[in-house]
Amino acid sequence: MPFYLRVVEMSGQEVRVAILGASGYTGFELVRILVSHPRVRIAFASSRTQEGTILSDHYPAFKGMADICYSPVDVDRIAEEADFVFAALPHGASMDVVPDLLKRGLKVVDLSADYRLRNKDLYQEWYGTHKNPELLDLAVYGLPELYRGAIKRANLVANPGCYPTSIILAVAPLLKYDLIEPDSIIADSKSGVTGAGRALSLGTHFCEVNESFKAYKVGGVHRHIPEIEQELSLIARKQVRIAFTPHLVPMSRGILSTVYSRPRDGVGEKDIEEAFRTFYRDEPFVRLFGPEAELPSTLQVRGSNYCDIGWRLDRRTGRLIVVSAIDNLTRGASGQAVWNMNLMVGFPENMGLQYAPWQP
Amino acid sequence: MPFYLRVVEMSGQEVRVAILGASGYTGFELVRILVSHPRVRIAFASSRTQEGTILSDHYPAFKGMADICYSPVDVDRIAEEADFVFAALPHGASMDVVPDLLKRGLKVVDLSADYRLRNKDLYQEWYGTHKNPELLDLAVYGLPELYRGAIKRANLVANPGCYPTSIILAVAPLLKYDLIEPDSIIADSKSGVTGAGRALSLGTHFCEVNESFKAYKVGGVHRHIPEIEQELSLIARKQVRIAFTPHLVPMSRGILSTVYSRPRDGVGEKDIEEAFRTFYRDEPFVRLFGPEAELPSTLQVRGSNYCDIGWRLDRRTGRLIVVSAIDNLTRGASGQAVWNMNLMVGFPENMGLQYAPWQP
Amino acid sequence: MPFYLRVVEMSGQEVRVAILGASGYTGFELVRILVSHPRVRIAFASSRTQEGTILSDHYPAFKGMADICYSPVDVDRIAEEADFVFAALPHGASMDVVPDLLKRGLKVVDLSADYRLRNKDLYQEWYGTHKNPELLDLAVYGLPELYRGAIKRANLVANPGCYPTSIILAVAPLLKYDLIEPDSIIADSKSGVTGAGRALSLGTHFCEVNESFKAYKVGGVHRHIPEIEQELSLIARKQVRIAFTPHLVPMSRGILSTVYSRPRDGVGEKDIEEAFRTFYRDEPFVRLFGPEAELPSTLQVRGSNYCDIGWRLDRRTGRLIVVSAIDNLTRGASGQAVWNMNLMVGFPENMGLQYAPWQP
Amino acid sequence: MPFYLRVVEMSGQEVRVAILGASGYTGFELVRILVSHPRVRIAFASSRTQEGTILSDHYPAFKGMADICYSPVDVDRIAEEADFVFAALPHGASMDVVPDLLKRGLKVVDLSADYRLRNKDLYQEWYGTHKNPELLDLAVYGLPELYRGAIKRANLVANPGCYPTSIILAVAPLLKYDLIEPDSIIADSKSGVTGAGRALSLGTHFCEVNESFKAYKVGGVHRHIPEIEQELSLIARKQVRIAFTPHLVPMSRGILSTVYSRPRDGVGEKDIEEAFRTFYRDEPFVRLFGPEAELPSTLQVRGSNYCDIGWRLDRRTGRLIVVSAIDNLTRGASGQAVWNMNLMVGFPENMGLQYAPWQP
Repeated sequence: MPFYLRVVEMSGQEVRVAILGASGYTGFELVRILVSHPRVRIAFASSRTQEGTILSDHYPAFKGMADICYSPVDVDRIAEEADFVFAALPHGASMDVVPDLLKRGLKVVDLSADYRLRNKDLYQEWYGTHKNPELLDLAVYGLPELYRGAIKRANLVANPGCYPTSIILAVAPLLKYDLIEPDSIIADSKSGVTGAGRALSLGTHFCEVNESFKAYKVGGVHRHIPEIEQELSLIARKQVRIAFTPHLVPMSRGILSTVYSRPRDGVGEKDIEEAFRTFYRDEPFVRLFGPEAELPSTLQVRGSNYCDIGWRLDRRTGRLIVVSAIDNLTRGASGQAVWNMNLMVGFPENMGLQYAPWQP
Repeated sequence: MPFYLRVVEMSGQEVRVAILGASGYTGFELVRILVSHPRVRIAFASSRTQEGTILSDHYPAFKGMADICYSPVDVDRIAEEADFVFAALPHGASMDVVPDLLKRGLKVVDLSADYRLRNKDLYQEWYGTHKNPELLDLAVYGLPELYRGAIKRANLVANPGCYPTSIILAVAPLLKYDLIEPDSIIADSKSGVTGAGRALSLGTHFCEVNESFKAYKVGGVHRHIPEIEQELSLIARKQVRIAFTPHLVPMSRGILSTVYSRPRDGVGEKDIEEAFRTFYRDEPFVRLFGPEAELPSTLQVRGSNYCDIGWRLDRRTGRLIVVSAIDNLTRGASGQAVWNMNLMVGFPENMGLQYAPWQP
Repeated sequence: MPFYLRVVEMSGQEVRVAILGASGYTGFELVRILVSHPRVRIAFASSRTQEGTILSDHYPAFKGMADICYSPVDVDRIAEEADFVFAALPHGASMDVVPDLLKRGLKVVDLSADYRLRNKDLYQEWYGTHKNPELLDLAVYGLPELYRGAIKRANLVANPGCYPTSIILAVAPLLKYDLIEPDSIIADSKSGVTGAGRALSLGTHFCEVNESFKAYKVGGVHRHIPEIEQELSLIARKQVRIAFTPHLVPMSRGILSTVYSRPRDGVGEKDIEEAFRTFYRDEPFVRLFGPEAELPSTLQVRGSNYCDIGWRLDRRTGRLIVVSAIDNLTRGASGQAVWNMNLMVGFPENMGLQYAPWQP
Repeated sequence: MPFYLRVVEMSGQEVRVAILGASGYTGFELVRILVSHPRVRIAFASSRTQEGTILSDHYPAFKGMADICYSPVDVDRIAEEADFVFAALPHGASMDVVPDLLKRGLKVVDLSADYRLRNKDLYQEWYGTHKNPELLDLAVYGLPELYRGAIKRANLVANPGCYPTSIILAVAPLLKYDLIEPDSIIADSKSGVTGAGRALSLGTHFCEVNESFKAYKVGGVHRHIPEIEQELSLIARKQVRIAFTPHLVPMSRGILSTVYSRPRDGVGEKDIEEAFRTFYRDEPFVRLFGPEAELPSTLQVRGSNYCDIGWRLDRRTGRLIVVSAIDNLTRGASGQAVWNMNLMVGFPENMGLQYAPWQP
């Protein structure tokens, strides 16, 4: 019998959500997903740059779907009009508002980096001084495959970065079952241009990107590194350091990470396959492409919450290559945020996220 | 109060559909839409070239969503396993199978050109000999804005071509209310590459398309012309001839048509705006961008069933320019086909089609 | 015997050129062409925004080829260091400096719109007040196919706009030999994104352009219109008005214009072909693709100074469709400017411009 | 004084060249470069698939520049009409014709893999049986930075593969001066789609490539591996094995290789910089971007013969990351082939290759 999707039919009350920072790409992606979510109503949206304008005037794709006016961030008003908040603000701006939101009893998914690191010294080193470090202990890292239970009980979820999502999912099973040498990991990642945001820069000018492929922040300097190492170290139960090189691809969406590591002596293909199958058993948003299947591509996950993972063992050099593909805006940001919301408020976890990738 | 979408909650029986020709782009697009349709189950899929393989192996984006095996076209089996048929076969191949499907009581939306023309001589002139011309009278042209009532009662709907959808919707109100000179219409249309299908040709090789913009089938020779003229003539209640030039744009999806015409003496901007507003009042899938709004782009309708329409009057030369944008695979093919199905089986007409366009 | 190109071998003195505004795309394109020109040395380059930096640091593609420092515009210094000036400044900025350059005996090709219109009232209407309207009579419109003789004698050449180049070349023979009705011309043009310049705007952000096709400045409001009409009227020896719609294509370079007109009674395909063949006989940078050939595409002229022209007669509607393709930065700006320089200083006219288009 | 290019003025005799396989992308790229080469005449061109047609009909970009008819491969005729042969044939087809060409005294640059490996057993392992393995000793590997002297004396040059060119140039100085551990090399390479050739396949269909980034031939199975390892081992004077993963980028041209390795103990940034500066001193087609400069991108070398190289040391993980960028068709194939020809016939080595990259 052919398998097919079915929208879960529900009754019951809706959740009123506020989106802070709803004029950037992650904000738009939240709007895109939430207008089709059967149990959510977008009750509030803010934007520093577009205050007073209508969201669908600013972004005509949403005409008729999100004719909501951008308001200034007013915590009292948000607490009155909304039950749940997505903070899609720049790094550093979230920590100015999140504590007040929590005090008013709102649940929050924060899409910035402000609450991803558990250690305030590490935050200091990579980002600067944290204004409310006491919340770092409270926040749950919002990668459901790792922290589903804690997310369900959390009031504040720190939504993972896009590169970290693609890399952590690619190696978590290998470290969990101790199949690779932890210090051998090299993550060579490639991202579409939405990862650079909607702000203007020469680096996102069409004619500078088109027909251009390049690396950036090379040499262990990208701010996603501490976040990746924190999570991999927790899984490995020892300190893990990774080499990480991000690249820019002339396309709008998608991240593909090619992750190299050295398997421990005696580890074979069956061990690797079994590790992935076991670790991701019953996971709704990880799809595995084993040694016989074609490897993943960004196109086949575009617009979806899937993380597709494939791998090959290179016997000549004794290296394992894992390839993972996600949509940086969906699984790497807003789709994952909605998944976290579903878990936090008790909805079926795939609600509003269970649709086919955008192809071709 | 902000407007938002809500998936209509329903109970009741599902419709089992068959998709003939499910390995091309319009077939995939049908699958993509239907796996999220709350009242549909894909019960059967055929492909000449992929018989025996699993759809999601052929198209990994659908892994876990459409793990259905391509079967040969067997009318008896289809009649047993399905209630409704989408025929996404090449022109000329549909007419070999559609009569038998109808005889078995199946309702059919045919996405080829085989049943779009009402006049068999016109069919002969542009396509060749028709094998069952008697069905041309029976088939309803599946443009719901024009034929909603007839579609609801139809057993066979001829789904419009992609260019015709974008052009007819751009000028129908103007001809209906007699605002333009019928012989003055020039449609300059630009299409993404999916319009050329998934079959291999040098003309769709990435490196021949990238950074290339070109016209093709110039000079009144494209087969969509008789279909466009048939419908415009019916609206205008007189013979209309149009000049039509298709172009290929280096992008995957989207059609933008720039349609020039001469307004009749005395026709002003208010008349034009009123014509569009009246003609498309309450239409769920037409969005109007009047003289104050920005004109439509293909990006803002990508993946959706919307047709966005804008216009400007050029007083210097006495010409009206209407710009319409659709996604050629969705509104120009499979989305419109699902809309027709919804009408034919009595579902809410926007069911499975009411989601935000794919941006960015 | 196969035909082939040969770089003309020359001795003799070099021309020292100054490029004003050498940090935008037309400035870069001038640098690109001139570093390979056998008789030119780039002696001076200015940029408002990059003063003091090295051109090849700002644009690493030129490393080792144009390690020249951006200087402020200093007319005395320019007069000392250079013999010839390319002004690639914004509209309105050229007229501040061109008179002084001319007074010092420098020859100038101005790539802005400042000297393209012969009538100062027309300039006022479309651009604003002209500061030295007396130069409008002196300047020669730099389209060599029309004004080769005058360009050779000129001290100031107004380099044509990109759209005007593609449109004027497409219809000049038809108006010259009186084959079409002058009021029937509609030019539907499509441009790559370099046409919008290197300045930052949301409209040139990669993710807003990619997969997007749109029209802009619709309804007779684009500033290239008076320039096109001026030249077409001179050729037709009567006032010509055209409808013109520009579009943005998701690619970096290229303009394709699809130009519609009504042939006069009795005009046939042979007349049209003969007009094009006669008008462009021996022209080095126009290539004709007659009714049997494929129509031009932007890819096949990319990076070159060619204008490729093809046409079809639509007998059904009595319309002629001419398609012309150029590279907007080369033939539409800097390549044409170098061609004008060659003519003005007495070099072989194809010097530095005779190379194959960039394919694929 | 600003630096600038100057076409070397020469008199003297021209070289008549034959291009075998002149209908694929490397063949076209040879034509593109050679029509502007001041001392070359294209005297002969073959194509299995296009025999009898005119090259510029098949590829209209060359209209007026390469109006040469494709002939069948006839060694006697080639020997009569040409002095020099570029064989741009598929792997395995070259070895059928190269021995006869050499016997007739023609000099040959072979762009296939047929003569790149020095060891016939290695050839057998990766490609199959070699038909004239005795030529493997005779052939010189055509990477001028490594073998300039031998190339000058060679009659048969095996033009390097595109990936090998980008990877060997990125690590040769490091191995030469013994700065890195030879077994630590991982090359993560990304190529534009022309690398897949002009033959039709679903993998090069525009809509399957656009917005898609993917890895292929993962796990040590790409045929460029033995070639890379052969050359790196010769430089290192010991057996080197590398992990190599190729990827496909949605763009037409360019390869960027990100090469990871472990510096030996005590090796610092200065050693690395000095190694690159020394190794590539006075090389005309390598440009170095040290630690202070931005890293290379494919756009800044497009259409040129340059290999741009940059690097960063990651102190956190003790890894060196070298990034190299080439145009796969020019430096990775046909530009390098012309460079080899220049060396073999005694022309200035940069003749016909010294022009600015294609930007933007």
